[in-house]
Amino acid sequence: MPANVAPYNELPPVLTALFKAKASRGLTFEQIAQTIGKDEVWVAALFYGQAKASPEELQAVADAVGISHSFLASEVGAQWFPNRGIGPIPPTDPVIYRLFEGVLVYGHALKAVIHEKFGDGIMSMIDCKVHVEKKPDPKGDRVVLTFDGKFLPYAKW
Amino acid sequence: MPANVAPYNELPPVLTALFKAKASRGLTFEQIAQTIGKDEVWVAALFYGQAKASPEELQAVADAVGISHSFLASEVGAQWFPNRGIGPIPPTDPVIYRLFEGVLVYGHALKAVIHEKFGDGIMSMIDCKVHVEKKPDPKGDRVVLTFDGKFLPYAKW
Amino acid sequence: MPANVAPYNELPPVLTALFKAKASRGLTFEQIAQTIGKDEVWVAALFYGQAKASPEELQAVADAVGISHSFLASEVGAQWFPNRGIGPIPPTDPVIYRLFEGVLVYGHALKAVIHEKFGDGIMSMIDCKVHVEKKPDPKGDRVVLTFDGKFLPYAKW
Amino acid sequence: MPANVAPYNELPPVLTALFKAKASRGLTFEQIAQTIGKDEVWVAALFYGQAKASPEELQAVADAVGISHSFLASEVGAQWFPNRGIGPIPPTDPVIYRLFEGVLVYGHALKAVIHEKFGDGIMSMIDCKVHVEKKPDPKGDRVVLTFDGKFLPYAKW
Amino acid sequence: MPANVAPYNELPPVLTALFKAKASRGLTFEQIAQTIGKDEVWVAALFYGQAKASPEELQAVADAVGISHSFLASEVGAQWFPNRGIGPIPPTDPVIYRLFEGVLVYGHALKAVIHEKFGDGIMSMIDCKVHVEKKPDPKGDRVVLTFDGKFLPYAKW
Amino acid sequence: MPANVAPYNELPPVLTALFKAKASRGLTFEQIAQTIGKDEVWVAALFYGQAKASPEELQAVADAVGISHSFLASEVGAQWFPNRGIGPIPPTDPVIYRLFEGVLVYGHALKAVIHEKFGDGIMSMIDCKVHVEKKPDPKGDRVVLTFDGKFLPYAKW
Amino acid sequence: MPANVAPYNELPPVLTALFKAKASRGLTFEQIAQTIGKDEVWVAALFYGQAKASPEELQAVADAVGISHSFLASEVGAQWFPNRGIGPIPPTDPVIYRLFEGVLVYGHALKAVIHEKFGDGIMSMIDCKVHVEKKPDPKGDRVVLTFDGKFLPYAKW
Amino acid sequence: MPANVAPYNELPPVLTALFKAKASRGLTFEQIAQTIGKDEVWVAALFYGQAKASPEELQAVADAVGISHSFLASEVGAQWFPNRGIGPIPPTDPVIYRLFEGVLVYGHALKAVIHEKFGDGIMSMIDCKVHVEKKPDPKGDRVVLTFDGKFLPYAKW
Amino acid sequence: MPANVAPYNELPPVLTALFKAKASRGLTFEQIAQTIGKDEVWVAALFYGQAKASPEELQAVADAVGISHSFLASEVGAQWFPNRGIGPIPPTDPVIYRLFEGVLVYGHALKAVIHEKFGDGIMSMIDCKVHVEKKPDPKGDRVVLTFDGKFLPYAKW
Amino acid sequence: MPANVAPYNELPPVLTALFKAKASRGLTFEQIAQTIGKDEVWVAALFYGQAKASPEELQAVADAVGISHSFLASEVGAQWFPNRGIGPIPPTDPVIYRLFEGVLVYGHALKAVIHEKFGDGIMSMIDCKVHVEKKPDPKGDRVVLTFDGKFLPYAKW
Repeated sequence: MPANVAPYNELPPVLTALFKAKASRGLTFEQIAQTIGKDEVWVAALFYGQAKASPEELQAVADAVGISHSFLASEVGAQWFPNRGIGPIPPTDPVIYRLFEGVLVYGHALKAVIHEKFGDGIMSMIDCKVHVEKKPDPKGDRVVLTFDGKFLPYAKW
Repeated sequence: MPANVAPYNELPPVLTALFKAKASRGLTFEQIAQTIGKDEVWVAALFYGQAKASPEELQAVADAVGISHSFLASEVGAQWFPNRGIGPIPPTDPVIYRLFEGVLVYGHALKAVIHEKFGDGIMSMIDCKVHVEKKPDPKGDRVVLTFDGKFLPYAKW
Repeated sequence: MPANVAPYNELPPVLTALFKAKASRGLTFEQIAQTIGKDEVWVAALFYGQAKASPEELQAVADAVGISHSFLASEVGAQWFPNRGIGPIPPTDPVIYRLFEGVLVYGHALKAVIHEKFGDGIMSMIDCKVHVEKKPDPKGDRVVLTFDGKFLPYAKW
Repeated sequence: MPANVAPYNELPPVLTALFKAKASRGLTFEQIAQTIGKDEVWVAALFYGQAKASPEELQAVADAVGISHSFLASEVGAQWFPNRGIGPIPPTDPVIYRLFEGVLVYGHALKAVIHEKFGDGIMSMIDCKVHVEKKPDPKGDRVVLTFDGKFLPYAKW
Repeated sequence: MPANVAPYNELPPVLTALFKAKASRGLTFEQIAQTIGKDEVWVAALFYGQAKASPEELQAVADAVGISHSFLASEVGAQWFPNRGIGPIPPTDPVIYRLFEGVLVYGHALKAVIHEKFGDGIMSMIDCKVHVEKKPDPKGDRVVLTFDGKFLPYAKW
Repeated sequence: MPANVAPYNELPPVLTALFKAKASRGLTFEQIAQTIGKDEVWVAALFYGQAKASPEELQAVADAVGISHSFLASEVGAQWFPNRGIGPIPPTDPVIYRLFEGVLVYGHALKAVIHEKFGDGIMSMIDCKVHVEKKPDPKGDRVVLTFDGKFLPYAKW
Repeated sequence: MPANVAPYNELPPVLTALFKAKASRGLTFEQIAQTIGKDEVWVAALFYGQAKASPEELQAVADAVGISHSFLASEVGAQWFPNRGIGPIPPTDPVIYRLFEGVLVYGHALKAVIHEKFGDGIMSMIDCKVHVEKKPDPKGDRVVLTFDGKFLPYAKW
Repeated sequence: MPANVAPYNELPPVLTALFKAKASRGLTFEQIAQTIGKDEVWVAALFYGQAKASPEELQAVADAVGISHSFLASEVGAQWFPNRGIGPIPPTDPVIYRLFEGVLVYGHALKAVIHEKFGDGIMSMIDCKVHVEKKPDPKGDRVVLTFDGKFLPYAKW
Repeated sequence: MPANVAPYNELPPVLTALFKAKASRGLTFEQIAQTIGKDEVWVAALFYGQAKASPEELQAVADAVGISHSFLASEVGAQWFPNRGIGPIPPTDPVIYRLFEGVLVYGHALKAVIHEKFGDGIMSMIDCKVHVEKKPDPKGDRVVLTFDGKFLPYAKW
Repeated sequence: MPANVAPYNELPPVLTALFKAKASRGLTFEQIAQTIGKDEVWVAALFYGQAKASPEELQAVADAVGISHSFLASEVGAQWFPNRGIGPIPPTDPVIYRLFEGVLVYGHALKAVIHEKFGDGIMSMIDCKVHVEKKPDPKGDRVVLTFDGKFLPYAKW
């Protein structure tokens, strides 16, 4: 987890330390997630500085990976709020680019279907839960990625 | 469906005609999809020029919306292949922007979880099926958006 | 309201016709807004293709400016959903640029104050009402621009 | 407040120190604002290097957060003028992006209404006061954001 | 003045017609300016759609170049407000690029001198008069370009 | 003058030192300019690394602000030539943006007037003198900014 | 010379007509240049709308290619001034890209050598003559491209 | 030659050291070029990391400026290949911008003339020699810049 | 092959006609290529306006697809030279994006290997032949894409 | 291999160390590749952080260049996944730019030929093997670059 290269160079040092602690214990996000009772995608988002934990959650994460809680809290604690959004646009990494390609290719189709099913409004990316599941398949395992977001109708005034 | 404005100005005239035929019959993508035995997101993608139909599928779409099959086939038939990707980047429309924001905020977390679950590789956006579901919720209905894509491991050579 | 120049070239022809009908009757957005019982900013947003009207609202607008309701409904009626976001970024027009400058200069301060008052989340631009008021002032009248948007807390999962 | 990451990496060290002093005393911008007799948005703008304080205001801020006044004055004192504008465009952070989205979606409507109410000119972002208020609402509290700026008519010559 | 090429393609047809009428009478902006009692730079700005004329000024311009006043008024009359800002950024034309280069090279020096002379604030580009003068010089005539803009101090609140 | 933030982070350390020396003596650019017999805008340009001084001018500047001449000469002396152009484009700082807005709004008008007065060619930004003057005005003091540049006709060959 | 494609779509129709007239007579720029007593690069620049001809030169060009002089003069005659700069940046065409690559690779080296030979200033691209010569070479003919531009020293004031 | 500012911040430390050694001996590129039997533009390109020297050439450069050959060879020796292309695009420095402006203004004219003289192909920027010459002129000395590049015809297959 | 949409909107009308003629005869590029004795990639490049044919090749293409030779020759004949480079960058179409991704991911590795095998220089994209082959594979057929380009060593001078 | 300049500044320190170890042993990628039984392009991609090695492959690389295996494994070992994509777009280095130019010039032709040969789908850049071969040629040696990628048909659903 070299602190001088992307995306770690966009993160506060405490988060690079968090990645290192996780690596030294050989933990996966799934394992940490189970320990602290959260989803692994949310936990990963926390490590990348894209989510905010409560004091109890910070304590649980600190315990799980074996890092000083006070160090964690002093940097990304109560007084800290994520400055969200990292990485280049368009993404250069093929994994992230494929998600971006989904927006390029299916964005208008999704907008049209959402409007037909829900009316004028959007799918929230704030009140939204994101999951990744592994679906075994003899022709090659599949990634099932789900966004479960609240529909928000446009105000009229 | 004014042909001179985005995103219709990026589409061949036959597709604008397709949108008009659909509107004049008052059909939803879901209804067309059920008629022709496909998912509504794929059908919408077809209307936006982002998918390629077989001759039989084109015939079924033409029948469903009441447009001349030969007109459709002469423009987006066997000899035609989609030039995929439409709309500005970053998207300006809030519905599409929210998907894009998902890439900005959760892209690295998703990459990390996919690697931990599957190893070095990507989730295909080519062998990928996309669905939108409406999940009723007393606090406000939810949009459940699913990408179901094959995992592709990186070659070594 | 020349249809070939910005921002009218980004609008469907029916909206340019709407602007012309409004001009030929010499109406302000405020007058139309009072007639149809909506705020003038929302009405202006409708003219610029940035809001969606119900059938009753479309009828009221058509009556107010003296344009054919069926023409209006056939182009921006039930089957139509706004493709939101117009104009260049950064804006070149000084009126719009000043709003943009507000984001550049006060964006982080506003984010910090919103987080301190509300916690981790955002101010919705979907469930948001926007008003413009004229405040007379002997040193020069003032524009009072208000965004009244729902706070949306971030989901955890 | 990690000095190596956005937006703190765009600020002089004295301002990062100011953020740390504020955090260590557990103060909000609202509390500091009340102490020094200014609005909290202006105070936050000062912390982000987007406003210039008088010597008396600097002294008051130094006292309020418990930082050396001479350190503050030597870096952002009389001889210093803000180099305004921070963060990426378009903003990646969802809180700030929503304000930007307001410009994208409502910019032309606001321009039109301002012109109708005031004539040819702009709303100043220099002689402009910005406020954030929390409006309790059973359906979810609301953020009321106000820009109160002088109207400036275009010169003719 | 070919309507299909830059910068005329960014202008409403009535302004292209205005340029043609001016050309067919062989008038300079200076001559029109003297006739209507305004500065030539302001008149040129009007032709490029960057200024707004009063009904009397429009009448005077129409008379000066021999174009129908009602045509002019119907397109850029009372109901019309300039959508300011034309041409690419950075400018490709060498004349306009040199002005832009002035911002690149002398922008910070000018900012520093303005602050030292006036304090924290800006030079208005709204209440600003712009002049071009020809200063004969044996080593080559000189262009003297003057911006005379009101200083606006930053509000504090 | 914090060396790690814009625009000082684009300058060699000796120039940051120059700014500090100037600040510690409480000198304005106008005062230094009078001492060394140059215009204050040119002196400010020198401090921002946008102009090149002769050995005598460097000596005079060093004396005026009380910095070692040899330090100055070793860094920005005979062997050094400015790498001109600093700051982001478009400028984010409102003072500099207003100049840029002048190019956006009045660029084509100025080009047209220059061509009418001088023919095909440009106003030089190399053989150009730039001045800032304070013009007292009861309605608010005014900034008078002058560019006095040689006209250069286009070669034909 | 299809008028709808780059770079002809950036040119006024009269210039596309000029290209067609030249093609129908089977003339090269070199032949036209010899006829009218100018360099072929300047003549080509004229065809691409990047240079301004005198009335006599326009007459000579019209005669050389067999196009109506009055048509030419009405569009690009006395009242017309080039709006210089065409094509995308970075150039996509390999011929033009190679020139651009010359700037990327040798730009700083050329700047350094020019300063050492001439002092602080620039090579004018306004008072500059550009030539292309064919130098036969058994290993493959060579293009010799020359820019002959006046050195302009920076003003001090 | 301050290592922290453009363009030196894009160069390996050994090249900044090379610039310093050259400056301390007061040498010009022309003098070094004569000593090592190469053109001064090529030598300058070498200093800016845009050319690759043979071991003998490195030795000669080291001797000429008085720097350790082994230091030079260990950093930019046999195992090193230039990563070509430095500086911003568009260039902000006026000297380099003028070359860029040459591409903007004369690029298409040069392409047309090259095609007419040589057929379908390009002028190589790889097998290309670049020279700068000072041509004395009573009206002001001139810079004569020559690119002498091999013509490469397009393959057909 | 709808002429108003990408990439056909970047092509002269004669090439759209060429695509239509090819489609109406149901020919593949491979079939045309065999008829005229060229590679299918080169033929496709010709259709997309990215290659230049000799008069004989144009005649052969016209015969192969059944289009008027004189129409073809009048538009893309002897006097015409390709203006190469089409489509957006980064490409939005997934087929073309994958090639682009190859540059992003393997560009530096390829540069390093080419330098080690050939020295300082480039692989020509001008004297380069491009082939596509289908390699049957039980696990899924493979595309074998070959670039066969001349190595060009950098000149020294 | 100076760690502060492109592209090494985008790499973790362990990879810069790897480059230095390779250089100090005077090894080529081809030699390392033969030692460890992989292709030289893949090995180079590994050095540039664009591929992921298994523990055995890391051990073999460490042995081949004489670097500590544990250092290598602690930084780019099991817990590390490449963040792929380096360098600017468009590339400035001529070697890499030529590949990019291949996409610009031949991208659509390749897409068309791939679709004709394989149908609707893409050539994978994930399951893709890349080779560089030197083909001796009396007129100048040639670089034969091969991409051998699996064809992936688009899913329908």
